[in-house]
Amino acid sequence: MQPAKVALIGFGTIGTGVARLLLKRRDRIARHAGRPVELVRIVDLDLDRDRGLKLPKGLLTDDLDSVLGDAEITAVVQLIGGLEPARSIMLKLLEAGKDVITANKALLAEHGPELFDRARQLGRSIAFEASVAGGIPIIAAISECLTANQIEEVHAILNGTSNFILCEMEEKGSDYAATVALAQSLGYAEADPAMDVDGTDAAQKLAILAHLAFGARVRWREIPRMGIDTVGVADMRFARELGYSVKLLAVARLVPEGLELHVAPTLVRRGTPLAEVRGAYNAIRVVGDPVGRVFFHGLGAGQNPTSSAVVADLIDTVVGRMAITFRTLELWSDSREARVRVREPASVPGRYYLRFNVDDRPGVLAEIAGILGKHHISIASVIQHETAEGGEDVVPLVIMTHSATEGAAADALGAIERLACVHPGTVRMRVRE
Amino acid sequence: MQPAKVALIGFGTIGTGVARLLLKRRDRIARHAGRPVELVRIVDLDLDRDRGLKLPKGLLTDDLDSVLGDAEITAVVQLIGGLEPARSIMLKLLEAGKDVITANKALLAEHGPELFDRARQLGRSIAFEASVAGGIPIIAAISECLTANQIEEVHAILNGTSNFILCEMEEKGSDYAATVALAQSLGYAEADPAMDVDGTDAAQKLAILAHLAFGARVRWREIPRMGIDTVGVADMRFARELGYSVKLLAVARLVPEGLELHVAPTLVRRGTPLAEVRGAYNAIRVVGDPVGRVFFHGLGAGQNPTSSAVVADLIDTVVGRMAITFRTLELWSDSREARVRVREPASVPGRYYLRFNVDDRPGVLAEIAGILGKHHISIASVIQHETAEGGEDVVPLVIMTHSATEGAAADALGAIERLACVHPGTVRMRVRE
Repeated sequence: MQPAKVALIGFGTIGTGVARLLLKRRDRIARHAGRPVELVRIVDLDLDRDRGLKLPKGLLTDDLDSVLGDAEITAVVQLIGGLEPARSIMLKLLEAGKDVITANKALLAEHGPELFDRARQLGRSIAFEASVAGGIPIIAAISECLTANQIEEVHAILNGTSNFILCEMEEKGSDYAATVALAQSLGYAEADPAMDVDGTDAAQKLAILAHLAFGARVRWREIPRMGIDTVGVADMRFARELGYSVKLLAVARLVPEGLELHVAPTLVRRGTPLAEVRGAYNAIRVVGDPVGRVFFHGLGAGQNPTSSAVVADLIDTVVGRMAITFRTLELWSDSREARVRVREPASVPGRYYLRFNVDDRPGVLAEIAGILGKHHISIASVIQHETAEGGEDVVPLVIMTHSATEGAAADALGAIERLACVHPGTVRMRVRE
Repeated sequence: MQPAKVALIGFGTIGTGVARLLLKRRDRIARHAGRPVELVRIVDLDLDRDRGLKLPKGLLTDDLDSVLGDAEITAVVQLIGGLEPARSIMLKLLEAGKDVITANKALLAEHGPELFDRARQLGRSIAFEASVAGGIPIIAAISECLTANQIEEVHAILNGTSNFILCEMEEKGSDYAATVALAQSLGYAEADPAMDVDGTDAAQKLAILAHLAFGARVRWREIPRMGIDTVGVADMRFARELGYSVKLLAVARLVPEGLELHVAPTLVRRGTPLAEVRGAYNAIRVVGDPVGRVFFHGLGAGQNPTSSAVVADLIDTVVGRMAITFRTLELWSDSREARVRVREPASVPGRYYLRFNVDDRPGVLAEIAGILGKHHISIASVIQHETAEGGEDVVPLVIMTHSATEGAAADALGAIERLACVHPGTVRMRVRE
């Protein structure tokens, strides 16, 4: 059978992993693809850097047109990060008749509707398994394996960097800044880890999952998100005292009022599978009717798991499965009606863990409890450890609430933070019921 | 678009779940299948039993020929248990030009080569996601999502009945017979649970996974298997004392000498994901290169998860994905060369937990240790609790070995069981390293 000619755009860490698989696993890939898959072009601006991979002569080029203009190339793995030129290049590839495979969740979360509509118009496909949870085949699971189900809940740890940082803080007791520095030195965190630790990355992935699982038309910026950068070692200790671990949880939950969505550091009961996810791993817990609970766990990022997902997508594309899946998914179009409405964030209920830094004097708890009460938030438990004689002037006060709406919690916190007895550095986390 | 006309053969528990989904989830299924999926015939010998599902008139029949002879029916869900007439009916369906969806792992494990070869000759497909681990999409994961990987290991809990029994024994301290009776009363175990508890069911599923993941040509009867029926509450306590839980583990592991396969009650270190699988759940831990560890957890059997898997397969079949996957999988043919050799079971190494019932007198440990030594099996630890004054004459002696081959362990046990000081009821379990 004629080989399928494919190209790779973006020859960084993931690109190198993908190229290595395509070059070294030819037989396996040919078997699954039904014909040889021949990598005929790699496009990158940097032609000189040593990626530790010996390429056949002439494979690497900085000329994108050599891919766009080659009609024999039908599938292209595009591994350029960020929004531009990634978006323009993807549009050009689609218009040149190529099916595209991507790992760029930011691009999909931002420009998904435009890109998917364009691909549909042109009869092309975009495969994106690698964009969410790396080595965990969650996109295929939802879009192909759980198709008979009404998905009811998705609870997920989607950012390995945050999870690594939280686990280190919990296990070693080291503080946030030191742990971020460690994560950077180990390659688990970028030089600027903002998108990982502030919940952006997880919210973008959650937006993709919400489209897939619920047919929601949600923009990632509209997903309420809190990051882990306010979480302190003290919170880890309090959480443990209460029987919980802290996880950056991305949640989508279908209730009669609509689809609840949020990303937040969350207290998860110890001993449950999500609480036990360690290090840079990702995990996703899906509840569907009739399948029940299904739990997936694996590496969420990095060269190896991501290239595994990319090459599986490439095989799906070459063999023709992806065209079918893409056609039937009706994914992500602003021109179609959403199947579920997203619930107004302020009305979403939940339990909260609150830590205030307060003056160590009588009456403070009463003031704070008063404000919570005024906002109809009732208190489930309080931790305020006795301070040593001559101890500090400012002490932590931890309050676990019963269920309260996001809006009430935000309003109450605003009021509490204006109290004279409350000092900066309030921490708010969700509590998984 | 023309609806896809489908039929269901076997209207038992699973069949009822499948019919309910097809009748009640028409819109969802049509969306994913790219066209309406119309259930036009259900065949069962029992036309009278109330399944709690209102069927359109004329749907249920006992006439198989009404399906075989209807050329408009292109896909058939066949949910008949056992080997015959399941095998003959499946061959007839294939010969009548139908694609088949099955949940019958015993049939595939026994007659897979014949059925798959015949389907290939006829250009038809057989889908079987529901045959292994119910609601966990492990067949799709291995055959579509991890296709770039060299799978290195599969460790799995594939029999929910056994896992339920082991968990109950561990948590409640009740004995094996009472727990089996409880499992039967709750519907987790058949009236005759032999195939579940003796490892047959798990070995059949492991054979299917080994074909898929490794391209091995293995007959399930050749997979060494031990059941859980010899495991006592005392073993649960000893295991816990040593830091382990007992699980019926199905293992496939690729080593330079070949593919190691076995099903055995196994001590799994507490705190690891497999050890924490509770009740009737299944779990599968796959290690692949380059994906690393991926872990799947979900309900392994029962109407709901199984019908979720069956309907997903039906959608895959109707939409055309299954034809592609089936064609490229080259699954299970005796006429093709195996890609890996199965390692001679006797030469497979492993650590063992051994419990002997021995006379409570000096010298017994020395005798047993002597025989183990003669078979080059060294002892890692021994548990022999002091018996109370005037205690029992026969006491348990627990030995954990270092790595020994399956053959040496079997030989040594045979010799030890012939000792006068050793009474019947020896327990042998594997220890997961």
